[in-house]
This record gives sequence, C-alpha cells and structure tokens, in this order.
Amino acid sequence: MNADEFRRRGKEMVDYVADYLEGIEARQVYPDVEPGYLRPLIPPTAPQEPDTFEDIINDVEKIIMPGVTHWHSPYFFAYFPTASSYPAMLADMLCGAIGCIGFSWAASPACTELETVMMDWLGRMLQLPEAFLAGEAGEGGGVIQGSASEATLVALLAARTKVTRRLQTASPGLTQAAVMEKLVAYASDQAPGSTWGWGGGRVCVWRLQGDYDEGLKSGLLLALQVVATLGTTSCCSFDNLLEVGPVCHKEGVWLHVDAAYAGSAFICPEFRHLLDGVEFADSFNFNPHKWLLVNFDCSAMWVKKRTDLTGAFKLDPVYLKHSHQDSGLITDYRHWQLPLGRRFRSLKMWFVFRLYGVTGLQAYIRKHVQLSHEFEFLVRQDPRFEICAEVTLGLVCFRLKGPNSRNEALLERINSARKIHLVPCHLRDQFVLRFAICSRTVESAHVRLAWEHIRGLAAELLGAEKE
Amino acid sequence: MNADEFRRRGKEMVDYVADYLEGIEARQVYPDVEPGYLRPLIPPTAPQEPDTFEDIINDVEKIIMPGVTHWHSPYFFAYFPTASSYPAMLADMLCGAIGCIGFSWAASPACTELETVMMDWLGRMLQLPEAFLAGEAGEGGGVIQGSASEATLVALLAARTKVTRRLQTASPGLTQAAVMEKLVAYASDQAPGSTWGWGGGRVCVWRLQGDYDEGLKSGLLLALQVVATLGTTSCCSFDNLLEVGPVCHKEGVWLHVDAAYAGSAFICPEFRHLLDGVEFADSFNFNPHKWLLVNFDCSAMWVKKRTDLTGAFKLDPVYLKHSHQDSGLITDYRHWQLPLGRRFRSLKMWFVFRLYGVTGLQAYIRKHVQLSHEFEFLVRQDPRFEICAEVTLGLVCFRLKGPNSRNEALLERINSARKIHLVPCHLRDQFVLRFAICSRTVESAHVRLAWEHIRGLAAELLGAEKE
Repeated sequence: MNADEFRRRGKEMVDYVADYLEGIEARQVYPDVEPGYLRPLIPPTAPQEPDTFEDIINDVEKIIMPGVTHWHSPYFFAYFPTASSYPAMLADMLCGAIGCIGFSWAASPACTELETVMMDWLGRMLQLPEAFLAGEAGEGGGVIQGSASEATLVALLAARTKVTRRLQTASPGLTQAAVMEKLVAYASDQAPGSTWGWGGGRVCVWRLQGDYDEGLKSGLLLALQVVATLGTTSCCSFDNLLEVGPVCHKEGVWLHVDAAYAGSAFICPEFRHLLDGVEFADSFNFNPHKWLLVNFDCSAMWVKKRTDLTGAFKLDPVYLKHSHQDSGLITDYRHWQLPLGRRFRSLKMWFVFRLYGVTGLQAYIRKHVQLSHEFEFLVRQDPRFEICAEVTLGLVCFRLKGPNSRNEALLERINSARKIHLVPCHLRDQFVLRFAICSRTVESAHVRLAWEHIRGLAAELLGAEKE
Repeated sequence: MNADEFRRRGKEMVDYVADYLEGIEARQVYPDVEPGYLRPLIPPTAPQEPDTFEDIINDVEKIIMPGVTHWHSPYFFAYFPTASSYPAMLADMLCGAIGCIGFSWAASPACTELETVMMDWLGRMLQLPEAFLAGEAGEGGGVIQGSASEATLVALLAARTKVTRRLQTASPGLTQAAVMEKLVAYASDQAPGSTWGWGGGRVCVWRLQGDYDEGLKSGLLLALQVVATLGTTSCCSFDNLLEVGPVCHKEGVWLHVDAAYAGSAFICPEFRHLLDGVEFADSFNFNPHKWLLVNFDCSAMWVKKRTDLTGAFKLDPVYLKHSHQDSGLITDYRHWQLPLGRRFRSLKMWFVFRLYGVTGLQAYIRKHVQLSHEFEFLVRQDPRFEICAEVTLGLVCFRLKGPNSRNEALLERINSARKIHLVPCHLRDQFVLRFAICSRTVESAHVRLAWEHIRGLAAELLGAEKE
C-alpha cells in the first residue's frame, strides 16, 4: 500500500471509526458468540498473495464485530471505564506515523521531553506535591507506564533494590537471598489483582496498624513496601493515607499509592481530599487511560526520587549511549520501566488536555459521578434492593436483599438479556452487582433505561421464586 | 470534539501522516536540539479552556518535529528497524476505536480469538514446530507481549514457578527463598540488555558447554533457564540451538529463545535454518514490530505448554470471572502476561499479513538483506575499512582499520553531520560502527549515498590525522 492508497483508505477508516462510535448504541453490547467461533471463519494460514482492502473491511463486520464486547457502548457498565476520545485517537495516528522508540533521550528528544512536561502538567492538575514533579531541577518526575501492574512492579523492584543496598552496606556479608527471605510487602485486602500477582514475593494484608507493627516486630520480617489503594476495583474503597503514610514515613518503608481508576477524579477540587496523605508516598500511580479520555495505554506514575528507579533499572550497553546522557539534564526513560521500547504516548495527553481543557475534563468527571449518584438514588427508591458500599465516584455496588444465589441469578438474567453488561464482586461474603459508569457518551436516559431493565428482570426473578 | 469534527480532523491527520512519511527523506534524520529544548516552548500548566485543533497541529511542526529522531527516514541506520506500514496504521485506527481491553475471553472474544489464530498463522509462516501452535486442541500457543523484555521476564517467572513447585514437591520443607538462592539463569555474553536487566536474579554467561556443566556440578547452583539469542543487538550473532538445546532438554532446563530482530527473517526458507533447534525450546519470542511491518508494539511469544504460563500468573478475582472460563475451550490472556490490560493488537497482524501476503513480506525481508550485502560489498572495496562480523541479515558491523579512537572520531563526525544516523557497538574490545538497514523506504541509492558520505568523512578524518 502506497501513500496515495493510504490517503484513500485512511479517510475511509476515519469514517468507519466515526460511524462505529456514532452507531454503537444500536449494537448489542455483549456478543452472542461461543468460544472458538472465530477460527472456522478464517483460513488456517496467511495468504500467499495479498488480499484486497475491501476483503478485510468486509471481514471486520462479518468476523470481528460479532465477537466484540462494545466497551464504549452507553449500555456498558462493567469493570471500570477504559478511555476513548477523538483527540486521543488523532494523537495515536500521529504517534504511529512518527513511530519512534523513545528508550533514550537521543532516540527521540521530543518523545522524552514532551512526556516529562505532560507528566508535570498532569501532576499540577492533581495538585501533587511539588516533590513529585520534574520541573527544571526537581529530583522527582513522572513516566508513562503501560499499566498499573507495571507501575506497582517497578515500585516494588525499586524499593527492593534500595532496601537490599542499605542492608548490604550495613552488613557487607549479607547475601541477596538472605535479604529477600525477610522482605514483605503490605497491601489492603481490597487491593486490585495487579498488586497480588507478583510471583515469588510475599504480600501480606494489613487492615489495622496493629497487624503492620506485628509483622515488623517479629524480626523475621522486614517491611519492604506498603501498597495503598485509592479506589479499589471491587467497590471503589479508599485506604487511609493519612493513617498509613506517617507510619511508612517514620519506618522508612516505601509507600506506593495506586489510584488506577480514582486518580482521574482528583483533578476536581471537590475530590482532591481523597488524595490527602500522598505527600508521604514515595511513588504514586493512576491510569488516565481509564477515566481521563486518554486511550489505552497511558498509566501515569510519579516518584519523588528518580534515582530510586534509575538505580534499579539502569542499563547502558554501548549501542544505547549518547553524547548527552551524563549531562544530568536529560532523561533516558528506559531506566524507569521494564521494557526497553516505548511509544510516543505523551502526544495523546497533549491532544486531550489541550482539546478538552482542564474545565472540560473536570466536567466529564463530574458528569459521570452525577450519573452514578442518579443510579444510586433510583436503587434506594426500591425497597427490594440495597446499596452495598458508599458511592464516592462512578461506581455503584448494589444487590437484591436476600441470598447470594438470588443475585447470581439476577446477574445471569441481566447478562443473558444482552441489553446492558455488568460484572459482579464479592464484598464481605456477599455477591454484589457493580454498576460502573463507563462510556464517554452515557447519559441520564441510558442509566434510567438500564435501571428499568434491571427492575423488570428482578421482578421476573422474584416472581419465579414465588412459584 | 464530536464525530463530525473527528471526520474532518481525522482526514486532515491522514493527509498529515502521508505527507510526513512521503516527505521524510527531506527532513534531517537526527535533530539539532539540546536537552531541555521543549519545556520553554510549552506553558507550565494545561490550559483551563480548550485550545483549537489548528493550534495543536501548528505546534506539532513548531515544537515536536524539531525534536524528533526520524526512525523511518531512509537515512536512519541506527539501532534496529522499528516497523512502520500503512496497513498496520489503519489497523491501529480500528483498534483505537474498538478500544476493548482484552484481559479475558469475555472482555472481547474477537480480541482473544483473533490473537490466537494470528499467532498460529505467524507460527506457520516461520515453520515453528506444531507443539508451539494452539490449533484446535494444542497444548501450546502464542501471545502478543509488549516487548521482548516482557517475554523474557514472563518465561523466567514461569520457569521459576515450575522449578520451585517441582523441588517443593520433592522436599516439602524447602522454602521458596532456599530454592531462589540456588537458581541461576544462563545467557550468551552477547545477549541483549533485556536479558540482563532483571534485578534480583542471577544470570551467568555461558560460552562453552563446559561452563554450563561446571555451574550445575557445583551443586550449590541449579540451572533454572537458558536464554539463547538469535540475532544479538550488537552484531546479529546467533547462539547455536543445536548445541545448547539438547543439553537443556536432557537436564530439564527451560530453554527460552529470543530472536527479537532476526525472527522476522525466518519466514524466508533460505533463513529458516537459523532457527533450527527451536524444537528443543520451551518458549520462543521475536518482534514483528521490528522487522515485519507491524507497528510497535507487537512482540510474538510462543510456549509449548500454555499451562506453564497460566500456572505462574493465574489471577481470578470475581469481577473477572465469566461463564465460559472453565470450559477448557477459551483463553484468558491476562494469565499469559504481566499487565492486566491489553489492546486489540492482532488486528495489526491481520491487516499486514493479508495486505502484504506472505510473498510480499518475504520480498521485504530479502530486499533489506540484499541492501546490507550491498553495503558490505562497498565497505570491502575500501582497504581502509574492515568488516567486523559476518553479515547474515540486515546489519553490517564495520570500522576503520586502526585504533578505537579513530572510529569514535568517525562516528562523531557522522552523527554531527546529521545526514545519516548510526550507533556503535563493542566487539571484542573494538569500537565498531553498526549500519542497520531500517526504513521501509530505504533503497540502494540511499545506501550508496550513505557510504559515499561515510567515505568522505573518513577521508577528512584520516587527512586531519596526518596533519
């Protein structure tokens, strides 16, 4: 395909994208396909000679779309939102064209420098303490990671390197394995799966300061890190940073704050108090690719001391050296992350922040929060239902009063009907339905329609129970 | 921005992208900017009210482009190629619009199933042993990772989990830390940085089978994994799988084969022999996002036993459960990787494979290899220069005969002149220049021009030395 054909096909694709998103409400939000549906529709091997573009576009509607869960449908209320906006898509087109791999400053200075400045912009929108910003001469700064999981892992490895060096300096004979055996990381029991997923490490639950002290006092263990979660996946609950932060600070334990979903809300002054205590943290992370209109992937991570990251990951083969790297002025982001390669993702932030403006972004967050409260209000009107967790942002946890089996049956009916899509969670042994405001285009009418639909299915279910 | 404005701006962006790539040859391949150039050109905070799209596009030329290293310029011969093609860019637009997060089958069946089938297509193009393919009922299969680093780490963690379980089954009292202390992974001394970067582990160099045996025989150590590299970053050398493979197989040591750059060439029958011995491997990885026209990121990884990965990473909070997951028919790719989230990256593979056809992809690889041999031929004509490593694929390692300082000075002149861009490597204590065929649009004329340019600078340098 040459540039002329790309001009033609690219414009057709722009229209296809706009048509898809404008018409998404009419598509069934959750697909009907069964596992294994796709393989028989596609040849077993790649074609020897090229297919035509028309063939492919026809196959998108015939083969792909019937198997798509439409995350951007206004009837999608599952998981958490994943961001989608036109400005971000335009920026992604530009990112693809430039196609630089920004592992070092020299590999594309604009890619590195725009990222540093955009992370400062975003940090200021959140009123992050100045210590987290790069500025002209700061010791901290921000980096775009691919996911909150990667940010948590990066923070954990940085903390481990720091603790190991400190202990080995104090006791030069100490082996790395002997250090490793003592280390323990702490997280809330509602922390997302990403926090728990790192094989080979030990992660303990803290609920009370008591537990935390006990682990330390046993002497067999050494606190490596505390991961505090702001806005858990199950019910959007918040760890109390003002409680755990000072303890970490006093004990010299690395505090990582993960606000993957909730972080976007902190750009609104009325939600900023939820971030109070972040001043005690060593690292902080949230995902603009969830709720801040920057398409996946864009996970924003800040650290107070960038040398904590570069100390853990520094990697300097000669083919990556460049003349400026020891100047102290530049950032080589490969030392801040696990992969070597990285795309020009800050373009998405730049386009979105400029084309929405802070006011536009705040209005977007507020609209979602308002819609979740509207849903909460509707649920509270119906005595058959109960709200299961405080509604703070865009997530409502609710259930039919009564046994879990009743709620499992309700969810089964909801998702089988295919009109809306929800997923459940467990809260204190209760099976609970999660209603998350997700789509950029969801309006009050969709929320009310979803509620009427749920009420109708609940009435059917309760009627059937009586028979 | 609404759909109508996106239709307009999207089409303008398509033209901008095509103009950029058609005109890239006229842009200076490596930028003139100094570290810190960008911050003064941009306000310190995001705008409160929206900027216009015109403002942004003007700033792209004014602020971004002067700081871009143009990886797709036909005068870019640095690092290794990073893929860029129009079909992949079209697929990325579609991927952005669908915007699903494919962590489970249910989160978007098409996203998961197309990936499995595309990885089978690609595996067959490479004539991978059937054991690596998913097929209808295979135990193996492929997954798209973000980078070769992630694939290496995933393989390492899977191997560690497997070894630990085996040892703990044999000796139930054995602690994880006691196992960890014994484990050692092996890699070639020319393995890429990604292999060496994992803090907390021990990676030893193997050169000879002797070293490898010695490590095992000491009894203090236990071989965890061997990472063999096909096509190293420095000089594109190849570990001998037929030598190391049978040893690993006999000893039950996990063999991971990393062919990040070279792997794409194996779609050509004449280069397939370089992959011989992969039948002994447990996992294999290469990056279509380097040399197979699939824009970053798309790192293809296969395993023979998918349960080795899912055993290490399985993570099942209730909000990610779905009705099909225990059917044995489906794949939840979140168990195959580190992050939870993932984009619909297989669309890029599908578009590229179909719009180029296998024949077109092979022709592309062959053209690059031919151009590197053309450059090698030119270098060999000039008695002042020497070739420093066998030219197998698209990389030529060369230098001026004489001291390293002379070659450092030559590289300095080359990169200061800004007409072409190269990076160096060290081979056996020699400072060597790497000439990598990178751009999709590079032709014989560019290679010859680059060589004349290098010769001219070398003549100047040698002249200055004599003065």
